[in-house]
Amino acid sequence: MSDAALIDLKETIRSIPDYPKTGIIFRDISTLIANGPAFRQAVRQLAEPFLDQKIDKIVGIEARGFIFGGAVADLLGVGFVPIRKQGKLPGAVVGQDYELEYGVDRIELHKDAIAPGERVLLLDDLIATGGTASAGVDLLAHVGAQLVATAFVIDLPDLKGADLLRGKGVMVHSLVAFEGL
Amino acid sequence: MSDAALIDLKETIRSIPDYPKTGIIFRDISTLIANGPAFRQAVRQLAEPFLDQKIDKIVGIEARGFIFGGAVADLLGVGFVPIRKQGKLPGAVVGQDYELEYGVDRIELHKDAIAPGERVLLLDDLIATGGTASAGVDLLAHVGAQLVATAFVIDLPDLKGADLLRGKGVMVHSLVAFEGL
Repeated sequence: MSDAALIDLKETIRSIPDYPKTGIIFRDISTLIANGPAFRQAVRQLAEPFLDQKIDKIVGIEARGFIFGGAVADLLGVGFVPIRKQGKLPGAVVGQDYELEYGVDRIELHKDAIAPGERVLLLDDLIATGGTASAGVDLLAHVGAQLVATAFVIDLPDLKGADLLRGKGVMVHSLVAFEGL
Repeated sequence: MSDAALIDLKETIRSIPDYPKTGIIFRDISTLIANGPAFRQAVRQLAEPFLDQKIDKIVGIEARGFIFGGAVADLLGVGFVPIRKQGKLPGAVVGQDYELEYGVDRIELHKDAIAPGERVLLLDDLIATGGTASAGVDLLAHVGAQLVATAFVIDLPDLKGADLLRGKGVMVHSLVAFEGL
């Protein structure tokens, strides 16, 4: 991908003030995804560091991680495995709780979706505090996957999610950063 | 895609008896999606009838429709627009109720995601009774989209969802059919 042709992806992301509550600026990636050339570029930039590595599966986190994850899996010619909210997967699962601002949530992965030792890439659209991604990393460790890296379109560095993952020894690749909350 | 190389996609779909309740066989597409060559073929077969047509956007229904939708959008080089459950989209939305076996559910679409007259393809993983897809068709009509066709990996023809859509004048493209409920 030549630099000359690069779109500024940050400019394609809509900011919605006071959503979901007062004082928060929501970074709405749907405007990037709806933009064909921007989406295509984001998919390629997510995959780029891993093109010369053996990747067996892409793992995506519900729900926006599915949009990028399906496209990156297809680009690399590998399978896609979903991590979903509790109760959404029909087969036998492993689950992992993680803390929200108020309360606890849980994500699940099909037990047999990844063979031990398979090399996977964990994708989501955005990393904020890293709670969900970190729970995803734990789930992948539980089934014996070899996590090559995590990749996100948007990083909110002030919320330190990428630091949390790096502290666990996980590589973090992201395309766009927004300072502030 | 030469016929000689074709995978029997139906064989890659796992059937889970008595899920989500006794007497129902759940067709679990996650085994197809986790299979790189099968996923790649399904994405191409979903897109195949539309390769020589002008398509502006792919619209996918939450959540499994996002996995195929992202990949098909990337393959065609166009944008992707999500239809989501109520309360999940941050911008101004249009919504549409649809009936479930017990009760009512609602899906939503960003009001400004599709310009009037844009040619779209509506994708989901599976069509059963067609309630969700039909509500999606209504939403797209509401924003003035030109719906070229709907496309599904799995059709459950006994549940007559494809008939329902065709009765509304909508083209239905599907890859695999399972008889019975």
